[in-house]
Amino acid sequence: MEPYKGVRDFYPVDMAVQSYIFDIWKKTAESFGYEEYGASVLEPAELFRTKTSEEIVNQQTYTFIDRGDREVTLRPEITPSVARMVASKRRELVFPLRWYSVPNLYRYEQPQRGRVREFWQLNVDLFGVDGIEADIEVIALAYKVMKNFGAKDEDFEIRVNSRNLLRKIFEGKLKDEGDLSKAIRLLDRREKMKPGEFDEAMKELTRSPVDLSISPDEKVDKILADFKKLGITNVRFDPTLARGFDYYTGIVFEIFDTNPKNRRALFGGGRYDDLTSLFGGDKIPAVGFGMGDVTIRDFLETRNLLPKTKASADYYICVMSQEEASFAEKTARDLREKSSRVAVDFTYKKIGDQIKSADKRGISNVIVVGPEEVKSGKVKVKNLKSGEEKELKL
Amino acid sequence: MEPYKGVRDFYPVDMAVQSYIFDIWKKTAESFGYEEYGASVLEPAELFRTKTSEEIVNQQTYTFIDRGDREVTLRPEITPSVARMVASKRRELVFPLRWYSVPNLYRYEQPQRGRVREFWQLNVDLFGVDGIEADIEVIALAYKVMKNFGAKDEDFEIRVNSRNLLRKIFEGKLKDEGDLSKAIRLLDRREKMKPGEFDEAMKELTRSPVDLSISPDEKVDKILADFKKLGITNVRFDPTLARGFDYYTGIVFEIFDTNPKNRRALFGGGRYDDLTSLFGGDKIPAVGFGMGDVTIRDFLETRNLLPKTKASADYYICVMSQEEASFAEKTARDLREKSSRVAVDFTYKKIGDQIKSADKRGISNVIVVGPEEVKSGKVKVKNLKSGEEKELKL
Repeated sequence: MEPYKGVRDFYPVDMAVQSYIFDIWKKTAESFGYEEYGASVLEPAELFRTKTSEEIVNQQTYTFIDRGDREVTLRPEITPSVARMVASKRRELVFPLRWYSVPNLYRYEQPQRGRVREFWQLNVDLFGVDGIEADIEVIALAYKVMKNFGAKDEDFEIRVNSRNLLRKIFEGKLKDEGDLSKAIRLLDRREKMKPGEFDEAMKELTRSPVDLSISPDEKVDKILADFKKLGITNVRFDPTLARGFDYYTGIVFEIFDTNPKNRRALFGGGRYDDLTSLFGGDKIPAVGFGMGDVTIRDFLETRNLLPKTKASADYYICVMSQEEASFAEKTARDLREKSSRVAVDFTYKKIGDQIKSADKRGISNVIVVGPEEVKSGKVKVKNLKSGEEKELKL
Repeated sequence: MEPYKGVRDFYPVDMAVQSYIFDIWKKTAESFGYEEYGASVLEPAELFRTKTSEEIVNQQTYTFIDRGDREVTLRPEITPSVARMVASKRRELVFPLRWYSVPNLYRYEQPQRGRVREFWQLNVDLFGVDGIEADIEVIALAYKVMKNFGAKDEDFEIRVNSRNLLRKIFEGKLKDEGDLSKAIRLLDRREKMKPGEFDEAMKELTRSPVDLSISPDEKVDKILADFKKLGITNVRFDPTLARGFDYYTGIVFEIFDTNPKNRRALFGGGRYDDLTSLFGGDKIPAVGFGMGDVTIRDFLETRNLLPKTKASADYYICVMSQEEASFAEKTARDLREKSSRVAVDFTYKKIGDQIKSADKRGISNVIVVGPEEVKSGKVKVKNLKSGEEKELKL
């Protein structure tokens, strides 16, 4: 039977990569004092209606009616959920809040390279800081994630822009003032379109030509200056950078792969100060980003940055016959008490075949248990790499 | 806006408990040489039709039609998915396979204490071993999970039975031979029913009285003897133990809470040798169990076994004004290079308030950054518990 189309099975070798990515994500976020939160995959469909981009809600969500007649959506992103959570406990929470999560998300897309229907994302958000320090910290965290994956500064580039500058670009230029979101989304898709196609579509929205060659404002300047001071030089201003979501209000940024064969956005984020107020109460300033597993995994593979898979155990115990099973179990148990990972081979195949099996799994320490070991109560460990053999002290 | 009914938001304090539970699960499984795998929440509805209990499929699954007209189910359990995965790569995989996963699962149930619509489960499976050693190992792993949570032997009890014995109990007693699954499921619900109610329902299925006071068979005896040898005495035979799923073929077991106020099954598992063959090819022997987060969390709370929440950072940097923000960022950056977790307070409130904020978060090391620190380039760390203050060497 085939799995569902567009999703992935993770056999252990793939899951090891996934765990590695999650580990770097979590450790980096925690090094900045971020705390993990979680929410459900299931959310009322209404949550996403006004808060997520129209394209996603209308064409890409998994939305259905449950057995109790409620309209449910499998979350396509977690930002509306975290905004809901923060808004509903605003009185009890101690700000600034530094929160992260690694949710699984769902979008009905046509399966293709880099596009799957179920994916994971590191989501990082800093709530409660108005100043540009918050934007700088969140971008620094994104930078640090890349470094912790082993990427060099020249492997990627951080592009920064501001929704304020985008608003200025389109000021007085749109045929319909209400089309600002549409124009921004069009700009966001620019690099994926043919040049003529983009110009054509932009002409339809605007009454006079749009000038994209503007200068950074004070906030963008501050970000660039701060990173320069830290000796980080792969940060630059990009007046065409847009981001797809409607909820951004200030700084937006994206991390780009600098591979000439594959220039593209790896991930991005920005400031969204208005979102929590949709759930009642005052505005709570917020900056964050989301980083997907599929794109980063692809980046790490291309750059040869994935670590070797770790063996699944430290010791492999080969057992001659069922007679020695209990003794083998006991030996395993004693080793586990010393924090070792131990697997026992209960196939009772020829010892040579069992040792081959250990080797195939990449486990280098082998223990053979037969009648002699049971009698003496002593076992030897053989290292398959060095060939060295020595008695195990338990 | 309210979250979806019957699911949980995990604020950081709750997420910390969740992470603690997942950590113990993962570390214990890995200490037995189990490798992590993963599958998608989305599966073809058909996968569960013949493989999961009727009650779950007909009344409790989230099943819907996607935008491409495919019938999709949010997995209510992961065993059919893992059986599908193992069957489809049977030629490449090296047996015995030791696999575990911590999937999120979905069941449409009436929300009540201990019943939620989205939950997590540790799933552990050993594939490719026919012998009783596999059953013993998986039960030993379940036992070890409980011990690693800090439970004492007297806090829980492991009950063991065999589907073979259950078949024997009902041999020649059923009005309709095809009602065996129904009779087993009835037995499974026995402790939740009123005594009269159970007897009544059993009478309807059987033509003569059923004798539940039978003796263990050789395999059950072997399990009891093995644990006794290891000095573990909370394992016992229970001829009425049934387990709800239809796919079990041999040994079944459950871990019971021994709390007299709350005697109930915490989790369980067993042997299911026929499931993979439903996906083509030969039978692959399999033993496994599933352990849910809700029940175990409740157990740990009741027994006072949950650890104290860890602070979200090792250092909290209080900043006098925006002038010192860059210096504070740099200090944080240097500390992070030394593997510390560092949060910076960018509120520029009175220093006393910022220190209070650190205290509320449980962070004990505080650094205050003002003009003097920027000028001298030196910072002091104050420990809020001991009151001690010393210069920080970077």
